[in-house]
Amino acid sequence: MSKVMLFDATLRDGSHAVRHQISKEAIESYCQAMDGTGVHTIVVGHGNGLGASSLQVGLSLLDERTMLQTARKNLERTKLGVYMIPGFGTIHDNLEPAMEDGVDIFKIGCHCTEADTTKQHIEFLRNKGKETYGILMMSHMASPEKLLEEAQKMQSYGAQGVILMDSAGAFTPEMVKRAISTLYEGLNIHVGFHPHNNMGIAVSNAYTAVCEGATIIDGTLRGFGAGAGNCQLEDVVALLEKSGIKTGIDFYRMLDASEQVMPTIMKYDMGQDPISIVSGQAGVFSAFKIHVIKAAKEFDVDPRDILVELGRRKAVGGQEDMIVEVAEKLSRGMNSDNKNDVSYQLESLL
Amino acid sequence: MSKVMLFDATLRDGSHAVRHQISKEAIESYCQAMDGTGVHTIVVGHGNGLGASSLQVGLSLLDERTMLQTARKNLERTKLGVYMIPGFGTIHDNLEPAMEDGVDIFKIGCHCTEADTTKQHIEFLRNKGKETYGILMMSHMASPEKLLEEAQKMQSYGAQGVILMDSAGAFTPEMVKRAISTLYEGLNIHVGFHPHNNMGIAVSNAYTAVCEGATIIDGTLRGFGAGAGNCQLEDVVALLEKSGIKTGIDFYRMLDASEQVMPTIMKYDMGQDPISIVSGQAGVFSAFKIHVIKAAKEFDVDPRDILVELGRRKAVGGQEDMIVEVAEKLSRGMNSDNKNDVSYQLESLL
Repeated sequence: MSKVMLFDATLRDGSHAVRHQISKEAIESYCQAMDGTGVHTIVVGHGNGLGASSLQVGLSLLDERTMLQTARKNLERTKLGVYMIPGFGTIHDNLEPAMEDGVDIFKIGCHCTEADTTKQHIEFLRNKGKETYGILMMSHMASPEKLLEEAQKMQSYGAQGVILMDSAGAFTPEMVKRAISTLYEGLNIHVGFHPHNNMGIAVSNAYTAVCEGATIIDGTLRGFGAGAGNCQLEDVVALLEKSGIKTGIDFYRMLDASEQVMPTIMKYDMGQDPISIVSGQAGVFSAFKIHVIKAAKEFDVDPRDILVELGRRKAVGGQEDMIVEVAEKLSRGMNSDNKNDVSYQLESLL
Repeated sequence: MSKVMLFDATLRDGSHAVRHQISKEAIESYCQAMDGTGVHTIVVGHGNGLGASSLQVGLSLLDERTMLQTARKNLERTKLGVYMIPGFGTIHDNLEPAMEDGVDIFKIGCHCTEADTTKQHIEFLRNKGKETYGILMMSHMASPEKLLEEAQKMQSYGAQGVILMDSAGAFTPEMVKRAISTLYEGLNIHVGFHPHNNMGIAVSNAYTAVCEGATIIDGTLRGFGAGAGNCQLEDVVALLEKSGIKTGIDFYRMLDASEQVMPTIMKYDMGQDPISIVSGQAGVFSAFKIHVIKAAKEFDVDPRDILVELGRRKAVGGQEDMIVEVAEKLSRGMNSDNKNDVSYQLESLL
């Protein structure tokens, strides 16, 4: 099988797990440890990407140009990447400065049904000759056919690959198979997958994606990331190599970074706590978790019931107000009894 | 698909993670929280099973009869189980007292090629009318055909199911498919799987096993267990139910136990550190880890190289002396250069 490219989101998605307080020293030591290990690119920045540092979603410890310049100084053999969601960031305020700061790889993301919001950004970057990938977030919420349609738009804008982001950790193995194989059949560019670990299957979902034709896996060391964490890259390498699929990774150097640098950056080990599991099962955006817990306390309802109802309503990032509404209605017994009703999510996709 | 039985090894395999210091209060609170949730059986005892408490492998805080009697008092609707490896325990010293203490389910284990050591114990239990399962440990070390041969012996002794134990966390998804489907085709009794999480794929390996016909999954809450931990049962339920496979579990009550009781029992969260990953990839028994780290320091060699060489030599529990021998030889440059040679394990099975 062909070589798989590993995208390293440790210094981007991981920042969610430390409230975006990634330090200059962390960026330096991480980039030094991982430079030349064979990962395709190291993505750096706020957890929600360029331009996202704000009071609402959390302020980064460092401004983004300092983060990028710091990483740039410490990466010689591995590419430097950024992630941006149009709306949070713009061409003028974020992409152009990032280009000045020497960023090699650009990942442009949007909700899985809104690819047209990425058109001008992807076209701008491709016209500048930059390596650019399209990202479809919350991709469990659209059918494989719809995902392909959106991915084809990104392909037409010039994206060199499309990565499905399982933002909620909601994909079952069957869902991965269907979505990735559909994209692989229908696109002429790279297909990638960015798993989350809410149900404990991020690594195997990455493996399944590769088996179905994906050539990009986007993960983090130690699974450091939002919610229940990401796909642990060390595990991916161990599993792919053992399965006869080449990664080109200097595995021992990656493990050294995992052992020596990660404990200095992480505040706690990743793991699947009950709220994260239900959140993934219900397909709710991981960042809703703290709001859900707060609303559950305020209205004296079960936070898991709120998550199940939010999943049923297909709530997406930005609809945080719905959390309070659901909690309030649950407290008055106005939602249907959703307890243990865990199969609707898949049904809605079949 | 038919219902899957979940065996709960939290109070048995989990004891490895706290040096067998499971307290009476832990057994009480855990059994109370999990009784009637729908798991088929809760297995209690020393990490290595009945009779294994010793200076060499670690002394249990409580004697095994106290553990069993405590659990018995707190289980009304869920069955009480024990695990025993003949050699550690005997019929007279362990199985008969366990029967007196009201144990319902007996799991008799052995190295994956030594099923005949379980003959007298399984036959004894079946003659007493006890529900009995055979366990093949370190099952990545034998071919599917050999595993079937050994499992058929256990079936002939009267075992009502055979569970493959991935003691080293070494199974890739392909290995699970081949081993479980072979047993499913060749046996008339239940087939089960007991994954470990060294490569981060315990949950999905359980799922794969179920897809191939397994009707027993043996795991723990929070993945609490030896080495990198076990297959997290909460995740298994979330994934199976979402995939349309019934578990019969009261999911919220299981999550309550996960949230309220587990933090009082666990000392640290499970996770895949680099040594655990290489150990799983190389197929080395998890309990070797501390000895490997010690020998690596003593002989100033890379612990990962020791693990790879031990995997190559197919070392098994009881051969701890080989660790020092390998470390010493590595320090003199006498082993072949194994760095990054991670594909031999699968090759040896194909």
